[in-house]
Amino acid sequence: MQSPVDLGSRTIPRALVVLCTSETSRSSSECSNDDQRLSASVSCSSSDFDLSISFRERYELLMARLLRRARTTRIWRRTCFVFYLQILIALFTLIVVIQLSSSIGSRVIYTTVSNGVLNNNLLTQIIVITPTYRRASRLADMTRMANTLTHIENLHWIVVEDNNSPVAAVERLLNRTGLPYTYIAAKTVPGYPRRGWYQRTVALQYLRNHTDEVTEGADRSVVYFADDDNSYDIRLFNDYIRNVRKVGIWAVGLVGGVLIEMPDVRNGTVVGWHVVWNKKRKFATDMAGFAIALDVILNSTAVFGTSCKRGLGAPETCLLEDLGLERSDLEPFGFHQEHRELLVWHTKTVKGTYNKRAQDTHGFFVE
Amino acid sequence: MQSPVDLGSRTIPRALVVLCTSETSRSSSECSNDDQRLSASVSCSSSDFDLSISFRERYELLMARLLRRARTTRIWRRTCFVFYLQILIALFTLIVVIQLSSSIGSRVIYTTVSNGVLNNNLLTQIIVITPTYRRASRLADMTRMANTLTHIENLHWIVVEDNNSPVAAVERLLNRTGLPYTYIAAKTVPGYPRRGWYQRTVALQYLRNHTDEVTEGADRSVVYFADDDNSYDIRLFNDYIRNVRKVGIWAVGLVGGVLIEMPDVRNGTVVGWHVVWNKKRKFATDMAGFAIALDVILNSTAVFGTSCKRGLGAPETCLLEDLGLERSDLEPFGFHQEHRELLVWHTKTVKGTYNKRAQDTHGFFVE
Repeated sequence: MQSPVDLGSRTIPRALVVLCTSETSRSSSECSNDDQRLSASVSCSSSDFDLSISFRERYELLMARLLRRARTTRIWRRTCFVFYLQILIALFTLIVVIQLSSSIGSRVIYTTVSNGVLNNNLLTQIIVITPTYRRASRLADMTRMANTLTHIENLHWIVVEDNNSPVAAVERLLNRTGLPYTYIAAKTVPGYPRRGWYQRTVALQYLRNHTDEVTEGADRSVVYFADDDNSYDIRLFNDYIRNVRKVGIWAVGLVGGVLIEMPDVRNGTVVGWHVVWNKKRKFATDMAGFAIALDVILNSTAVFGTSCKRGLGAPETCLLEDLGLERSDLEPFGFHQEHRELLVWHTKTVKGTYNKRAQDTHGFFVE
Repeated sequence: MQSPVDLGSRTIPRALVVLCTSETSRSSSECSNDDQRLSASVSCSSSDFDLSISFRERYELLMARLLRRARTTRIWRRTCFVFYLQILIALFTLIVVIQLSSSIGSRVIYTTVSNGVLNNNLLTQIIVITPTYRRASRLADMTRMANTLTHIENLHWIVVEDNNSPVAAVERLLNRTGLPYTYIAAKTVPGYPRRGWYQRTVALQYLRNHTDEVTEGADRSVVYFADDDNSYDIRLFNDYIRNVRKVGIWAVGLVGGVLIEMPDVRNGTVVGWHVVWNKKRKFATDMAGFAIALDVILNSTAVFGTSCKRGLGAPETCLLEDLGLERSDLEPFGFHQEHRELLVWHTKTVKGTYNKRAQDTHGFFVE
């Protein structure tokens, strides 16, 4: 297994060179113990191989003796053990560091702000969950979304930042809205895809653990997952989401490479899906296409798990299945009227190529 | 000039065949006048060339005679004249059709809707001019923008559609906003680039011709050009635009390939431009980066002309120059505070590839 190393005209096994090199650097005990007479002059560092012939002869003698003794005594095993122990310690340290960084990543920081206004209990509360992350267009997208949400009464906005700590500019933006909100910083932990799965999971767990803080005494609440770059008609909130009893479902524009993704509704019941991508999913809907009564969420432990084979990359169907829902539970919205209207679009903002470091931002905050 | 046409074993000039074919279909006067004996049997349509030999001989005789006479008399010139006259008439008709379609394109249809609410004359009125056009994401973009503008008091929205007629879905959207608005349909006429230049020009002309309808008695008004896919902080309107005395100017995010484009402000005065693209412009600003007092517009005939060499493709500097403005007229906003903030971003919505014809939209309106 060990390839020989050329050492002048002779060869000695590589293992021994490695052993000496590593040991000598600290105590050189292994080398020196073996032959006291030579210990002073023997140095295993590579620079010392430029020796006189007499020394080389003595060195070879020592090596031969060492090898002989190593085979017969326990030194060989012991040195091997020490060597592998060092490797193990290094590996262990590495694992600890990774785990520590993961645990830092999973540290969840949150702020909940109530707007101090009495909730109108006649209106069902809407809880909007928005995962977000740093990018050049984030503040623009969040600003537009805030301008939409501030039209909606009795709404609590849960924003989950994919970061170890909150971003001050986002917090200021949330404060300006005057909406009651919860701002959570929860960096994606290993195993989750970077698409808001972990942030939505954290939001669901937060909701279960801090229900009263969020609902503030509302009789009924409905949860909606809303990304910050989508486009929303305010009627989506007031006419659809607010009236969800169990799980509401509706058409979404500009998603999955098509103009419209929608449930196949017949006689007021969802019987299938008008989608192009992955039609076979039990719930072939985009995240923007449904809202769930808070009760349903509280009566379950369903989250956006680390893997979702059933969804083939789409976590929506997994969540709805894990919530114990069937297609018959879905309440379709917007299919009765003569002129059907889209009230939500899965828009995306063009990602420009901006080199922040190459540009002077002159005191402006950019991400 | 005329290539010969093979006619059985002989050849005759193409011009004559064309003449006969075209004339015969109407009166066959040219052919029949020439030789009365043959007039009944001579037909110049191609299907009649399958004739008996005796007829062919007589036909060739006629042709030869015709040719001879044509050379000696004025028939040849006359037929040529008629032929070219027909071409000229066809070309003229084509030009008239093109001109007509252009004039249809330049036909401006507009609706002005007042919200019936008394303007708060203490507040400067904001007139927002938005060019728009049909595309898959248009209603999404317009919906988001409407959600922003409906936060602003005393605002009149002029939307100019690049189309021959208004779009019902856009009109419904405008009605839902409850804002006073003017909806104009004005298709880009030839010579203008398809980037809203013509629509903004029409809006300026409309403003000059219907000032009272738009201002509704407001003491002061400020005009702002706002595209429907940009992102706006409501403070842009209330803190900046509303306070413009002559021409306000501010930083714009995500424009011209950079994170921020902004004026170079020193001691409250604009001395240059922090931009990457085309720094040499007198007013190197994006359309979203300035607003103009209505007075300045009414005291000028400046529009977004068909060509603007000075702007090197950017019409902003042309307009501002044509309005008779100098850099010293610019009032910079947002450069005094410690934490400078962007209040407008030149965002773009990702253009998906959607084939409307290949998709069943199930009664939903899509563009």
